[in-house]
Amino acid sequence: MNRIEELCKILKDDIYSKALTQSELRDIAKELNGLISGGAIVLAQVNPHSGNVKANALKAFEWIKRAQILNVDAVVFPEMYLIGYPIGDFIDRFPVIVEENIEWLNALAQCTDRVKVIIGFVEKNTEKTGKRYYNSVAVLSEGRVERVIRKSLLPNYAEFNDYRHFEPAEINSESRIVTLSGNKTAGIIVCEDGWNDSDFFETNLYEKDPVEVVVNEQSPDYLINCSSSITRAKKEQLKHNMLSFAAKKYKTPIVYVNQVGSGECLSFEGASRVYDENGELIARAKSYEEQFFIVNPLKKQGVIYPLPSGLEKTLTEQKAFSLDHEPDLERTYLTIVQSIRDYFGKSGFKRAVLGLSGGLDSTVCAVLLADALGAENVFGVSMPSKITSEASKNDAKELAGNLGINFTEIPIKDMFDTTRKVFDSVFSEVEKNWDCRFSESFTNDNIQARSRGMILWGIANEFQSCLPIATSDKSELYMGYATINGDMSGGYAPIADVCKTKLFALAKWMNKNRPEKNAIPQAVIEKKPGAELAINPKTNKPLLAEEALMPYEFLDEVIWRVENLQQSMGDMIDVMFKYEQAQLVTKEQKIQWLSKFFRRMSTSHYKWAIMPPSPIVDARSVNKAEYKHPTIASKINYNKTSFEEKLAELKNKESVLAK
Amino acid sequence: MNRIEELCKILKDDIYSKALTQSELRDIAKELNGLISGGAIVLAQVNPHSGNVKANALKAFEWIKRAQILNVDAVVFPEMYLIGYPIGDFIDRFPVIVEENIEWLNALAQCTDRVKVIIGFVEKNTEKTGKRYYNSVAVLSEGRVERVIRKSLLPNYAEFNDYRHFEPAEINSESRIVTLSGNKTAGIIVCEDGWNDSDFFETNLYEKDPVEVVVNEQSPDYLINCSSSITRAKKEQLKHNMLSFAAKKYKTPIVYVNQVGSGECLSFEGASRVYDENGELIARAKSYEEQFFIVNPLKKQGVIYPLPSGLEKTLTEQKAFSLDHEPDLERTYLTIVQSIRDYFGKSGFKRAVLGLSGGLDSTVCAVLLADALGAENVFGVSMPSKITSEASKNDAKELAGNLGINFTEIPIKDMFDTTRKVFDSVFSEVEKNWDCRFSESFTNDNIQARSRGMILWGIANEFQSCLPIATSDKSELYMGYATINGDMSGGYAPIADVCKTKLFALAKWMNKNRPEKNAIPQAVIEKKPGAELAINPKTNKPLLAEEALMPYEFLDEVIWRVENLQQSMGDMIDVMFKYEQAQLVTKEQKIQWLSKFFRRMSTSHYKWAIMPPSPIVDARSVNKAEYKHPTIASKINYNKTSFEEKLAELKNKESVLAK
Repeated sequence: MNRIEELCKILKDDIYSKALTQSELRDIAKELNGLISGGAIVLAQVNPHSGNVKANALKAFEWIKRAQILNVDAVVFPEMYLIGYPIGDFIDRFPVIVEENIEWLNALAQCTDRVKVIIGFVEKNTEKTGKRYYNSVAVLSEGRVERVIRKSLLPNYAEFNDYRHFEPAEINSESRIVTLSGNKTAGIIVCEDGWNDSDFFETNLYEKDPVEVVVNEQSPDYLINCSSSITRAKKEQLKHNMLSFAAKKYKTPIVYVNQVGSGECLSFEGASRVYDENGELIARAKSYEEQFFIVNPLKKQGVIYPLPSGLEKTLTEQKAFSLDHEPDLERTYLTIVQSIRDYFGKSGFKRAVLGLSGGLDSTVCAVLLADALGAENVFGVSMPSKITSEASKNDAKELAGNLGINFTEIPIKDMFDTTRKVFDSVFSEVEKNWDCRFSESFTNDNIQARSRGMILWGIANEFQSCLPIATSDKSELYMGYATINGDMSGGYAPIADVCKTKLFALAKWMNKNRPEKNAIPQAVIEKKPGAELAINPKTNKPLLAEEALMPYEFLDEVIWRVENLQQSMGDMIDVMFKYEQAQLVTKEQKIQWLSKFFRRMSTSHYKWAIMPPSPIVDARSVNKAEYKHPTIASKINYNKTSFEEKLAELKNKESVLAK
Repeated sequence: MNRIEELCKILKDDIYSKALTQSELRDIAKELNGLISGGAIVLAQVNPHSGNVKANALKAFEWIKRAQILNVDAVVFPEMYLIGYPIGDFIDRFPVIVEENIEWLNALAQCTDRVKVIIGFVEKNTEKTGKRYYNSVAVLSEGRVERVIRKSLLPNYAEFNDYRHFEPAEINSESRIVTLSGNKTAGIIVCEDGWNDSDFFETNLYEKDPVEVVVNEQSPDYLINCSSSITRAKKEQLKHNMLSFAAKKYKTPIVYVNQVGSGECLSFEGASRVYDENGELIARAKSYEEQFFIVNPLKKQGVIYPLPSGLEKTLTEQKAFSLDHEPDLERTYLTIVQSIRDYFGKSGFKRAVLGLSGGLDSTVCAVLLADALGAENVFGVSMPSKITSEASKNDAKELAGNLGINFTEIPIKDMFDTTRKVFDSVFSEVEKNWDCRFSESFTNDNIQARSRGMILWGIANEFQSCLPIATSDKSELYMGYATINGDMSGGYAPIADVCKTKLFALAKWMNKNRPEKNAIPQAVIEKKPGAELAINPKTNKPLLAEEALMPYEFLDEVIWRVENLQQSMGDMIDVMFKYEQAQLVTKEQKIQWLSKFFRRMSTSHYKWAIMPPSPIVDARSVNKAEYKHPTIASKINYNKTSFEEKLAELKNKESVLAK
């Protein structure tokens, strides 16, 4: 199959480069036609632009035209491709976008021949009852819309909001059948429709299983699942096992087409694939790349591209916390790089500016930005204060040099001094009327962080298409260990879903695996994290983050347990942490750390609310596309009390009433 | 009934003040018992705290104990009261909260006697299939949980996310019936369950109507709707007409119990009420106040408190844009004041600091803050730059004096000059490597706004329980006419859902209707808005907002048409705006303004994403609790193109391919 894939790549690249002449195109098509068996289809693994219906339609048109040259049976696009997923709420507020997507669908239909075009779009519900829209897939052929398949199972958890906009359709198995060459049939499944197997999952969200209904009632030769399904830690394991299980269970090959590219917080890894009737993987497209991917589901023809390195390992891994982040590092790297590239590209930005402190967070961000946007489009600014060490300044400079990004250094001493003078004068005025001035405050720490924010946003104001970057990481976000209008401020926050222990591992991985080895100075990876905003009076050195918080290895496991196991504080007291296996931790110390975690988290929610968008990376996150916590919910008891305590509270209340 | 209500108020106030002796309590109970007829119930119009289950349970207990003293038939709490609505996503991430709410429910049940307690809570779904929870109402009596009613219709539009967490229940009419004294029965309806009458609404979201099913199958003597339903412009009209319509249609009285208080972005106005079998209003509790409200639904006994002034007018008003904001001003004022008070109180803050520019936005915010938090808890800071006029400085000072809030003035000249010097040096370095420096930029404007933000956050860092306020208004938010880390930055944004023309009206209304008349200097209301951040080279005076944007009367109608009629640009070109009736506007000018609106809105989404929480006020909004727009969706065509144009685009593309 390699020559076929090679030619497909040339065809796809030409959509962008327009390098081939008409006769060269014809030659390729001719050669390809000679190589492909009957019954082949093209998986259009494409990157849509949310709401940019015209661009999506024109891109589809080019893909379709190439599929027509090959004269394959069908070309299959992802779920909701035409409107551009994710959609937020714009189809409700701006119905003109839906009108446009329907007209573009009809215009595309007019350009079809015998090659069936299977493509996701938003359909209007014309009935008096139900939501306004359907999440649908159209089959276009011979100049018309041949049929429309409506999604039945509408996910509404985590990053999904399908039920917010769409009416769930009755499962009409007949409507889902597309006839292909040689009278072969394919049954169409729309994403979540394929995620409700009661033998595979312990619990099920929905009563019916469209896969079961379609297979049992129609016995199609194979299934096609049109998806827009994001990447997350451990999700490849689930997806692979589930699709393989269903193919084997129903003795029916499954073609899975996924979108690629990132939409704000959501990242799609592509990796479209085919399983045969024994559940064996017979083809898999590349991850994180658009692909014109040709397969023959019934003849088991296709190429299997590798997953990001290490990811295969996670297919069989246990569901437990691990400090070994290695198997997930390339996926994490690729996800964030793609997110940055698409966030900038799709929002109309081109260049990024960030503060380089010489610390881990800004260092990792700089590498990711350089790889996503090109080093020439990244400006690193070192903004030392009097607490910044010479070593940090040197590390920042060395990093910039290694990456080839733009770099300048500007001390913030004058801004700090001037601001501090203004503050002294304001505070003495405020103090005349207000009590409760803190004896120790974060004021000076924050002047430094905010002066830096001011400089970065100033550069963004002065130079076109430039966006500042927020460098907060996930561990510190949970602790509220980030400054509003300081390191938390920016247009995008690349590592907000990456915990500190994983960031260290990622830094090492990038040093080893990027073409330019060891771009990150060894000192950055070796030193203990600290914001260099304040001096620890006990050590007389810059305060380390772990001194202010708790050991990161412990903290990251707490976060993991909250997100993945939904454990309460009480649950966690009773289990052995990885950190406890290596270090002696008293029960008092553990309870103190856990209390601190929940207390600090409770007062950090107002910071989460104003975090800039950031890519989802982990299995679960507090990314705003996935998780909302009312900031007023500040008095939650995360440690269960007993029923007896509750009764006692009521009794006590009653005796007060009966005073 | 007045004496009854008086005594109820004394009872309720005592829950907080604990001023009454046991014998005084008994006397009141005795007198009340003599006045109330059999069959009375208490509507517990309470203000819950999201996630603070213990506090909600203890408050319920006090309400219940008082209802028991009166020996009424039942005491009815709002939907989801025990867990505390709104819930965001915390019940999914922290199941311990649900455990706690169930245990507290059981503990409360143990304290009940013959007085039925009807109370909203979150129930676990123990089946293998479906979502994890039900949105349920429990009936507690005689020491046990008598029955549980599960909500069937789960709203998932605008601010609602019910279907995200809850399994919709089959409508079991028998389970919904509560037997009261004299063998009378009440049928329980949970909020949205009562909002699907196919005779009342032109279109319906759901197929079945629980009200119809319960009435037809069980013929209860009356219905009780436990709700948590927010206030919005024009919603009282809808709610009143709908409830009255259903009561009349089914010849069945309806008791509607609503929560009061605000939860972050959502505000509940209370105004619980009873309609008799002819659809006549026979009782209505106060708006924006907790109330121990006693009614007798079958004997038509109850007190009708007035709605916020003017609101009655909106019950019959047409659905059209109006620049006459008068009928909605008291409701708007009360909604925002309650929102601020509860946002601060429930998040653990007490004091607010804001910049006072002498302009309309900060002025209105200051008044609202003073009324919500007490003047002593508000600090206004005037931070003039060289562009700030003497008049603005004086207006700010005069306002603070009138309100009695704390006030100080600090020029930002030094901060501006120092920052500008640093910027000059940084920019010349950046320019060595980057092209596309703007010839005209907002850099200087923003230094001023951000220096102010820096001072306000500094005060919040230095003084306990203090939160800075973002003063952006709705008109300017749509235009992106707000500075990140400047006026957009704060812990709460009180007026982000109030358009500029309404803000002017609100300012006048407050001057007339607050106890202290004319607190807002007349000059603030009379002058044209402008940020005083830049000079208009044409006039050599500070640039006015309308010069930078478009007339506010026009802009506000565009926003209204987008939000309420979901019109595209093309739709709007074809209709006559209110502004056009008063002023001559050429078609070119109109198209230019509309284009500017959609263009600026398209590039403002990244600002919306990082806006602090703000109260929903209008019928529709871009509040983050209600509306999400992916910031990457920056290339939407808001002006429909024709089908022919689309075909031509494809033809053109094809000819490029066939080069």
